[in-house]
Amino acid sequence: MPRKKTPLADMSFLRSDCPLACSLDIIGDKWTLLVVRDLFAGKRRFSEIAESAERIKSNILADRLSRLEAAGLVTRRLYSERPPRYEYHLTETGRDLGPVVKAIALWGKKHIPGTRPPLFERRKTPEKNK
Amino acid sequence: MPRKKTPLADMSFLRSDCPLACSLDIIGDKWTLLVVRDLFAGKRRFSEIAESAERIKSNILADRLSRLEAAGLVTRRLYSERPPRYEYHLTETGRDLGPVVKAIALWGKKHIPGTRPPLFERRKTPEKNK
Repeated sequence: MPRKKTPLADMSFLRSDCPLACSLDIIGDKWTLLVVRDLFAGKRRFSEIAESAERIKSNILADRLSRLEAAGLVTRRLYSERPPRYEYHLTETGRDLGPVVKAIALWGKKHIPGTRPPLFERRKTPEKNK
Repeated sequence: MPRKKTPLADMSFLRSDCPLACSLDIIGDKWTLLVVRDLFAGKRRFSEIAESAERIKSNILADRLSRLEAAGLVTRRLYSERPPRYEYHLTETGRDLGPVVKAIALWGKKHIPGTRPPLFERRKTPEKNK
């Protein structure tokens, strides 16, 4: 069966046809999912993401945003022409990583002592208090 | 609040107290979760994991098993004294990565054209045909 022409078609099968392995070829590092987390949290601009607690270095952030865009997980929109500045948004494919981010954060909260509650859990709290 | 004394207590907070970031400090690479996948699939021995389709290199596999053991996600048991050989098993903390492995594999199957169905989905099929 011919493979569909999507950005991800060109990036997969580096190691095997296992969906876990192919996914890790894209998101399997210490930084990519933190960028995705920040975009889920509503951060849009390079400088906003760079200010997160983990202090991602500019060259790593530029690389990860560029890879995410190439893979079709992120789109960027020009919001200033001089100097050229972009806002970054998750695509539907990128937003589909929600359950991945959530599952990893829940595992960390459960097993790594002292980690703070995940963002999506802290957001629930004000609802409860209404 | 003092942090509980568990293997993971010593490995966390490298970058922030975010449970996603702390988890990625442990599982955020291209190989660790493939080793976890193989252990879920019932592989026990170094040579069995090394034979998986991705052909992980021996030095990388030894390093990942050693890190997983240090973090309390894997235990090893001697099964041969001469030469010394070990079998590897997921601990409860390691098995709790099931939803993570599953979420990533489902994302990959959905978005990366041509990937095969995840192992846990293929296992369901014979049940249906009974």
